[in-house]
Amino acid sequence: MNPIDMLKAIEKLNASLYGKDFLLTWDKSVDELKLVLQTAELLKALYEDNLSLRLFETGLAVSNFRDNSTRTRFSFASASNLLGLAVQDLDEGKSQIAHGETVRETANMISFLTQIIGIRDDMYLGAGHTYQLEVGAALDDGFNQGVLPQRPGIVNLQCDIDHPTQSMADLCWLKEHFGSLDNLRGKKIAMTWAYSPSYGKPLSVPQGIIGLMTRFGMDVTLAHPTGYDLIPEVVELAERQAMSSGGSFRQVNTMEEAFEGAEIVYPKSWAPYKVMQKRTDLLRAGDAEGLKKLEKKALAQNAQFKNWHTDEKIMASTHRAEALYMHCLPADITGVSCPAGEVSEGVFEKYRIPTYKEASYKPFVIAAMMLTNRMADVPGTLAELMEYPVERVLNVNALPPVYKAAPKAKAKKTAKKPAKKAPAKKKTAKK
Amino acid sequence: MNPIDMLKAIEKLNASLYGKDFLLTWDKSVDELKLVLQTAELLKALYEDNLSLRLFETGLAVSNFRDNSTRTRFSFASASNLLGLAVQDLDEGKSQIAHGETVRETANMISFLTQIIGIRDDMYLGAGHTYQLEVGAALDDGFNQGVLPQRPGIVNLQCDIDHPTQSMADLCWLKEHFGSLDNLRGKKIAMTWAYSPSYGKPLSVPQGIIGLMTRFGMDVTLAHPTGYDLIPEVVELAERQAMSSGGSFRQVNTMEEAFEGAEIVYPKSWAPYKVMQKRTDLLRAGDAEGLKKLEKKALAQNAQFKNWHTDEKIMASTHRAEALYMHCLPADITGVSCPAGEVSEGVFEKYRIPTYKEASYKPFVIAAMMLTNRMADVPGTLAELMEYPVERVLNVNALPPVYKAAPKAKAKKTAKKPAKKAPAKKKTAKK
Amino acid sequence: MNPIDMLKAIEKLNASLYGKDFLLTWDKSVDELKLVLQTAELLKALYEDNLSLRLFETGLAVSNFRDNSTRTRFSFASASNLLGLAVQDLDEGKSQIAHGETVRETANMISFLTQIIGIRDDMYLGAGHTYQLEVGAALDDGFNQGVLPQRPGIVNLQCDIDHPTQSMADLCWLKEHFGSLDNLRGKKIAMTWAYSPSYGKPLSVPQGIIGLMTRFGMDVTLAHPTGYDLIPEVVELAERQAMSSGGSFRQVNTMEEAFEGAEIVYPKSWAPYKVMQKRTDLLRAGDAEGLKKLEKKALAQNAQFKNWHTDEKIMASTHRAEALYMHCLPADITGVSCPAGEVSEGVFEKYRIPTYKEASYKPFVIAAMMLTNRMADVPGTLAELMEYPVERVLNVNALPPVYKAAPKAKAKKTAKKPAKKAPAKKKTAKK
Repeated sequence: MNPIDMLKAIEKLNASLYGKDFLLTWDKSVDELKLVLQTAELLKALYEDNLSLRLFETGLAVSNFRDNSTRTRFSFASASNLLGLAVQDLDEGKSQIAHGETVRETANMISFLTQIIGIRDDMYLGAGHTYQLEVGAALDDGFNQGVLPQRPGIVNLQCDIDHPTQSMADLCWLKEHFGSLDNLRGKKIAMTWAYSPSYGKPLSVPQGIIGLMTRFGMDVTLAHPTGYDLIPEVVELAERQAMSSGGSFRQVNTMEEAFEGAEIVYPKSWAPYKVMQKRTDLLRAGDAEGLKKLEKKALAQNAQFKNWHTDEKIMASTHRAEALYMHCLPADITGVSCPAGEVSEGVFEKYRIPTYKEASYKPFVIAAMMLTNRMADVPGTLAELMEYPVERVLNVNALPPVYKAAPKAKAKKTAKKPAKKAPAKKKTAKK
Repeated sequence: MNPIDMLKAIEKLNASLYGKDFLLTWDKSVDELKLVLQTAELLKALYEDNLSLRLFETGLAVSNFRDNSTRTRFSFASASNLLGLAVQDLDEGKSQIAHGETVRETANMISFLTQIIGIRDDMYLGAGHTYQLEVGAALDDGFNQGVLPQRPGIVNLQCDIDHPTQSMADLCWLKEHFGSLDNLRGKKIAMTWAYSPSYGKPLSVPQGIIGLMTRFGMDVTLAHPTGYDLIPEVVELAERQAMSSGGSFRQVNTMEEAFEGAEIVYPKSWAPYKVMQKRTDLLRAGDAEGLKKLEKKALAQNAQFKNWHTDEKIMASTHRAEALYMHCLPADITGVSCPAGEVSEGVFEKYRIPTYKEASYKPFVIAAMMLTNRMADVPGTLAELMEYPVERVLNVNALPPVYKAAPKAKAKKTAKKPAKKAPAKKKTAKK
Repeated sequence: MNPIDMLKAIEKLNASLYGKDFLLTWDKSVDELKLVLQTAELLKALYEDNLSLRLFETGLAVSNFRDNSTRTRFSFASASNLLGLAVQDLDEGKSQIAHGETVRETANMISFLTQIIGIRDDMYLGAGHTYQLEVGAALDDGFNQGVLPQRPGIVNLQCDIDHPTQSMADLCWLKEHFGSLDNLRGKKIAMTWAYSPSYGKPLSVPQGIIGLMTRFGMDVTLAHPTGYDLIPEVVELAERQAMSSGGSFRQVNTMEEAFEGAEIVYPKSWAPYKVMQKRTDLLRAGDAEGLKKLEKKALAQNAQFKNWHTDEKIMASTHRAEALYMHCLPADITGVSCPAGEVSEGVFEKYRIPTYKEASYKPFVIAAMMLTNRMADVPGTLAELMEYPVERVLNVNALPPVYKAAPKAKAKKTAKKPAKKAPAKKKTAKK
């Protein structure tokens, strides 16, 4: 689809995310999810055509990573920069937050000239999503009371419940791979636990996957060993969603059952819900000894399930023996990053490039979440970028294409814009 | 006042801060202080009108935080970004500075493409201001000797003596709250010590307040327990300034006396001067044991003055029982951030939003300090931003207002600008 | 030389570095080195004329410092910002890289919207250059397989073998000081070891100097105590290069012999090759005890050579007693940064400003490496910046000069550009 048609499709959506935080995919309507997804795709296409996508001359995007991160950090930085925002990291170690400051105060103090706040808080079960809601409420309060000149939008960069930038990037990749969202209807996807020699991995990826893919009519299978349950409310939600979207959701007890005939497999380790609850209590209590014991016990528990391993043999049982392997990366690769892990070297290597392409959507998904949050008129904004293209990278040998925008966007613009615009600020000397 | 009138008022000031570091408010004339204050207000108004305030296509703003910071760090980052500068943090931990490098060398090495250096150095009594002067002298030397293509300006983000970005933001807030600087004449402000269960808080805030508010004809009262003196020279300066500005300055021995009839109260903890001197010696000697002992002793000393606490009762003694409560934040709130602190929860909550608004001026005050330092023609610069407005955030549904600038600025521009400017760099393809 | 003539000289070079990583100077032709050097000089001249040098509306420059750095970090940040890129630091401590991620995966994950990756990796002998090659191969793979929309360029910010941003900045400074590259032919330069009370300093600076200066017909002398050899292959390369460039290369055993009659002296400490090899093994093994012993032994070895010290007396033996003293900074200055070091206070002070000017070229050299890597048509790009000047810093009282570009560049542009360009994105309201 060319950019003009992509824009037209966006105009047809009955959706607005203007001023709405993106915390959980299941809080959004299908059209709202499509709005993000299609905006991400269009931004990617325009990027490749060397169009600048700056919406902001100045402005901050604040990142708050309460857990380590490489790819999400870079994706957030890339998305912010793509739209013209400068990243300012809220490093709680360097700040005065430890001095007893409340969330609502900090939220305001970092937001005077801020457009977007991205938060990763996935360590404490029951805490991450709650924290993001608290920040949001504090921003509402600050804006309503005249403290903040704008109410910054929040993008959930992973919480204890959902990981929407990951799951939406995964969905973009599935759409690219299978050709359309419609083609995903009835596709069998297996979200399964996998063995890893580490513990404490968040539940947000599997929850995000079952919480999103059940919206689009897919046949979703969840599998994990006994005791590795996800948050029950999310599982129930997946069931309800599958029913209403015309897909299905089932749980099985072995990797083998889940993989059998699957067209997509997503084997990934996570910690048992109860271990995460216990861990949260110990982290809060600062009980280092207790944490060590818990880790030991959890690793011993994990070790009973080393057979939850994706190798060539189990892949052979999938649809046509060539299910699409997915992973949020980094994977624990047997013989590469650990002696025994989630996936064999052969299987990972076969799907390495596809997993990289899966990851490549993340900056654009985040940028789309930012854009749809900040812009009242999304198609009009995109149309403006397309009709008045600015080179992203100076190129003396070619100019970026000018896209004649879709009628709706055009109408909006002509009503309000002067016929002739004078150039501003940038200037050349007399010739 | 609308932006045009604000600009006209700036044009009338007999002041220039071009190339002058902003280290201490008392080094500046009243008109120079007004220049910063009014520029900050105008920048805030133009920001709210969605005008881009970029003065710099490229350039660095270096931050050097020798103490922890959240709000000052974000304010500096916001101000830098607002004018188009990228922040580069001089993190002395990550650098080679520990390897015996001299101040003058580092100052030059970080400045080749740098416009502004913001320094926070408030830990060592007698050191922070001296360090900023040393950096300034090194930059002078580097510029005069042809090493640096420009001499970066220095903004004091808090030193051992003054905290001008805080006190100027406080003044902006007082001006907004009371309507004008003139309305501040004769207003009673109580700058008082308050109990806190921590020690080692810098003296720069109370010093900054008595050093600035005595310039504007206010009736300034300073109160603290015996032994919690400020630097004597600053107190003497406040006395002299009050006399010449038509205000007054007095010291009393109790919070009660200070609050009695006050229209503004600023109760805040700080360390005794002598404890800070001792602490400086111990920090320099790396005497961890000595520091622990000093902390214990200082906290015990503090504990004698728990009655220096702002609650509803003492607030009732203020002017009409509703003095404006101010704080640089974060405050030590009794029952919230500590068992017993500077202020009761009720009083703080009543004035929470006002303290946030007080803080909201800081980014604009810093931006004004930067702008007035870098621009030879401040009104002309502001007029250019207003006459040739660029959208700060792309808005397809509205355009930013064009302000017909004040005559003086206009005359300056037409004399030097080409009648017709060709668009530069940014370009569109053939249609 | 004025900018127009500088541009014409660049057009005459038979060189392109488009898409080529800058890892080692000796991998580049003399014309390629001149392309970087002359582009750096032109960028410096245009910067001083207040021209914006932004080539990028958006884009990331990733820095990966595997060793501490102040001046290289700031030079990289300055260069990135100068061209319009935002720096994103890959801080391996904060990332998930320790979790067993492979180089090729990380390289791709940080590169989706990245133009340039700058890497400093000088700690492990045999590792730094190899790592940079690995990153390059991973980027090639990612780009060729459609993961990356562009293949970011790599700039070596110091490896175990070469330090090209330093040596090229040094060469720029020598050219400025002596008037031209031709004037450097036959100039005697002494690259010598110097005593320092620290150990483990990389070999890349002396190797970079002998590897670069032998390309330009200089008479290069290398001197160090027994046991302080450089990597043998680089010494052999210097010999071969000197022969073919019409210069010379010799090794002597004392500082005195090297300084005798030298027109340029570059006395600097480094670790013995074998100590660095041993250190690399110990670092890899995480052998803290072994490292301490090695340090003790190495420092004792260093201490035998305290007479390798640059003072007034040995400077008197140089050409006309006034050889140009060079240093990459920071120098170990006797009585200033250490009791006994590389250079006396008097000698260093005399040449302090020259060493600062030497350093001042680094941001422009890095920017030139970036620009030549990203732009297929370097003279055309520079011509565009010159013909359509944009103010770097808003200046209401003067406009930047318009340079009528050299014919070649002009022809290129008129063929492809529309006669009339519509202003894009930035706009003003109706008047």
